Amino acid sequence: MAKIVPLSGFPEWLPAGRLVEQKVLDTLRETFELHAFSSIETRAVEPVERLLAKGETSKEIYLLRRLQASTGQDKDDLGLHFDLTVPLARYVLENSGHLDFPFRRYQIQKVWRGERPQDGRFREFIQADVDVVGQDSLAFHHEIELPLVMVDALSRLPIPRVTIHASNRKVAQGFYEAIGLTDVEQTLRIVDKLDKVGPDVVSELLARDVHATPDQARLTLELAQIQTADASFADRIQAFGLHSDLLDEGLNELVDLVEGANALIPGSVVADLKIARGLDYYTGSVYESVLEGHADLGSVCSGGRYDSLVSDGKRTFPGVGLSIGVSRILGRIIGQKVVTASRKVPTAVLVAVNDESERAHAEKTAFALRKRAIPTEVSPTSAKFGKQIKYADRRGIPFVWFSTDDGEQVKDIRTGEQFAVDPDTWMPSLADLHPQITAGE
Amino acid sequence: MAKIVPLSGFPEWLPAGRLVEQKVLDTLRETFELHAFSSIETRAVEPVERLLAKGETSKEIYLLRRLQASTGQDKDDLGLHFDLTVPLARYVLENSGHLDFPFRRYQIQKVWRGERPQDGRFREFIQADVDVVGQDSLAFHHEIELPLVMVDALSRLPIPRVTIHASNRKVAQGFYEAIGLTDVEQTLRIVDKLDKVGPDVVSELLARDVHATPDQARLTLELAQIQTADASFADRIQAFGLHSDLLDEGLNELVDLVEGANALIPGSVVADLKIARGLDYYTGSVYESVLEGHADLGSVCSGGRYDSLVSDGKRTFPGVGLSIGVSRILGRIIGQKVVTASRKVPTAVLVAVNDESERAHAEKTAFALRKRAIPTEVSPTSAKFGKQIKYADRRGIPFVWFSTDDGEQVKDIRTGEQFAVDPDTWMPSLADLHPQITAGE
Repeated sequence: MAKIVPLSGFPEWLPAGRLVEQKVLDTLRETFELHAFSSIETRAVEPVERLLAKGETSKEIYLLRRLQASTGQDKDDLGLHFDLTVPLARYVLENSGHLDFPFRRYQIQKVWRGERPQDGRFREFIQADVDVVGQDSLAFHHEIELPLVMVDALSRLPIPRVTIHASNRKVAQGFYEAIGLTDVEQTLRIVDKLDKVGPDVVSELLARDVHATPDQARLTLELAQIQTADASFADRIQAFGLHSDLLDEGLNELVDLVEGANALIPGSVVADLKIARGLDYYTGSVYESVLEGHADLGSVCSGGRYDSLVSDGKRTFPGVGLSIGVSRILGRIIGQKVVTASRKVPTAVLVAVNDESERAHAEKTAFALRKRAIPTEVSPTSAKFGKQIKYADRRGIPFVWFSTDDGEQVKDIRTGEQFAVDPDTWMPSLADLHPQITAGE
Repeated sequence: MAKIVPLSGFPEWLPAGRLVEQKVLDTLRETFELHAFSSIETRAVEPVERLLAKGETSKEIYLLRRLQASTGQDKDDLGLHFDLTVPLARYVLENSGHLDFPFRRYQIQKVWRGERPQDGRFREFIQADVDVVGQDSLAFHHEIELPLVMVDALSRLPIPRVTIHASNRKVAQGFYEAIGLTDVEQTLRIVDKLDKVGPDVVSELLARDVHATPDQARLTLELAQIQTADASFADRIQAFGLHSDLLDEGLNELVDLVEGANALIPGSVVADLKIARGLDYYTGSVYESVLEGHADLGSVCSGGRYDSLVSDGKRTFPGVGLSIGVSRILGRIIGQKVVTASRKVPTAVLVAVNDESERAHAEKTAFALRKRAIPTEVSPTSAKFGKQIKYADRRGIPFVWFSTDDGEQVKDIRTGEQFAVDPDTWMPSLADLHPQITAGE
């Protein structure tokens, strides 16, 4: 068999890194539930035609085929989901009769994209999504609520501060149309590249692909360069002197978003008019984000308002949601040891074994400790105590338990202190009970 | 687009069922960590040659292909894992320099098998595995420890009692060889079908496939029919008067297992000599299990000792482990409503909105409650209070919060009682704080 090498694009962690990952996932889940979102978990596969309905990502889909399928039996009709929005849309349609609307769901799952590994992108990664989906209508205030859920969740993680950068599709569309650019979707896709390629290339692309005049290109770039932490962006846009109902509607919404969000969590949301989002199903607020000190990572949390992603022809299910790129964050904070676990194992206590004939006694001690919620392991060998202590030390297990002629005793192997204990009541400190996850050096 | 219908073999739950699933998964994880197992999570894919190395399941593998791959670019070289043992073996080899042995790991993940849907089997399901893997050697006592971890975990779930049924490959092999049956693997595979096809068919298969004489078939069936809750099985086997060192070694181990396990958890393990396990990599103890009252489900927790599943030629990594078929259990307890959640949402409190101008105040109240770990939602509308209460009622949210001219008040909508509260200290009872999962009827 071939030598074992890691598969590029499929990240995996050693146990200590996994402890950090679990802590991050637990915190996200806990916060989403505090905000009254219900968990759902969807299957990994969707019919290919449903995955392809969101055209531009089609090249990234992994199709499934059974190894032993007879010819023609499997019609390449299933693929792995590449995000959690397409599955949500399908889940809502499939179960709409059993769901209560507005339906508040969170979903933390792996997704897969067949990216070329040489791009250094993940091919398997975890996303954490929250969405509110209404039936036929959905109030605007959810567009203020949802980014705050994410800011609250991200602020509980041991990572640098995250700020949401927001714009509004109605502002962009109203503005472009008012200056005479009619291919709004293509214009958005070009503006979306601004951070990557710079203003000069964006100007060229606008001229080439949407036939923008130099004036139109200049105005488009001027809009994209507006970024304010308060509602003052609106004055700067009104100073263009453009007239469009859609633009006015969008401006009102964006003002409400920035003011409403910062009233609840100061510094949470800035207006950033270059935020375009490549996907064409957004119809209102759009969100990206910046992880302070790690801008090179790109947006770690993105989303927006969509009016018609989910529809069965008769009913529509408008929604608003954001998605955290969990693996992107973890790759940075675990990979660069920004965040570490205080030990490699869940174990708080190693019960020493005097000799193999006393293993059953050690096992009984361990079961009693576990009953009191103390993670406990029995030493796998009855080697000399020095070796058993070394076993604990290598894993970062703080306490070793001994049955001595003088009764039960516990050694804190970090201090070397050994003390007699009442086996029915002794507890490690809360800080020692479970591995602690801490940021930084 | 085609009408949406559920995909057979890919189970999904409504939010209330998902609450039960989360509770089950949390309990398993908590117990595994109490027993000092470290979590790992492996990628969903493995190289196909590695999946195929465990021959007999090859027909069930899902291969991956990128939709837009050029001809010859993807060589069908990746497939979805069909269990968590093959990934463990690969993970241990890939990371052996960074792991501490014996390596205690648990893993709770989805696996995929391309079963034909008409068999009513799952094609995507969750397994929960624990294994201890040694380097070059692994003490026998782990074969007593591991089934007890699973019995402890399963006993914490809101499900009927689970008993582990155990045998030992050395007993089977020593016995078959002593009576002159040399094709041990094929004999095991035939005996493995006993529950499904009955003794007569097993006799026929033994005659046909391993050329067993009527006497050999009779003895094989007599062995398979021995089942005892204590060590008395050993006397019955010794009464056959067979002589084999391997048989004696296996009997000693099985006696130690049954006596050792039941000394720690009475009634946890019975000796059941028909337990064969189809997989050919087991070399010592083998385990299956019965969920009381649901024997038709088949084994919900199985595994065994393996000496050479994991090897890189130079070193071997012997191990012992068991796997819980979580989806099989969930399908029964959620599907038949054996276990239910006390409400459909995580929410404990709905904050009513007097009118839209006061939504910001309601949001502030909600943020303050969440800071004190109370799952809280703000009413999506400022409709009449009766409608807002109905909104809570439909979801099972127990409390509605009102800002009145007489101060902050909370209504328990189950009793209709409304009382003034101190917003900084009021707490729902623990039973109301989170959805409760209870075994029904």
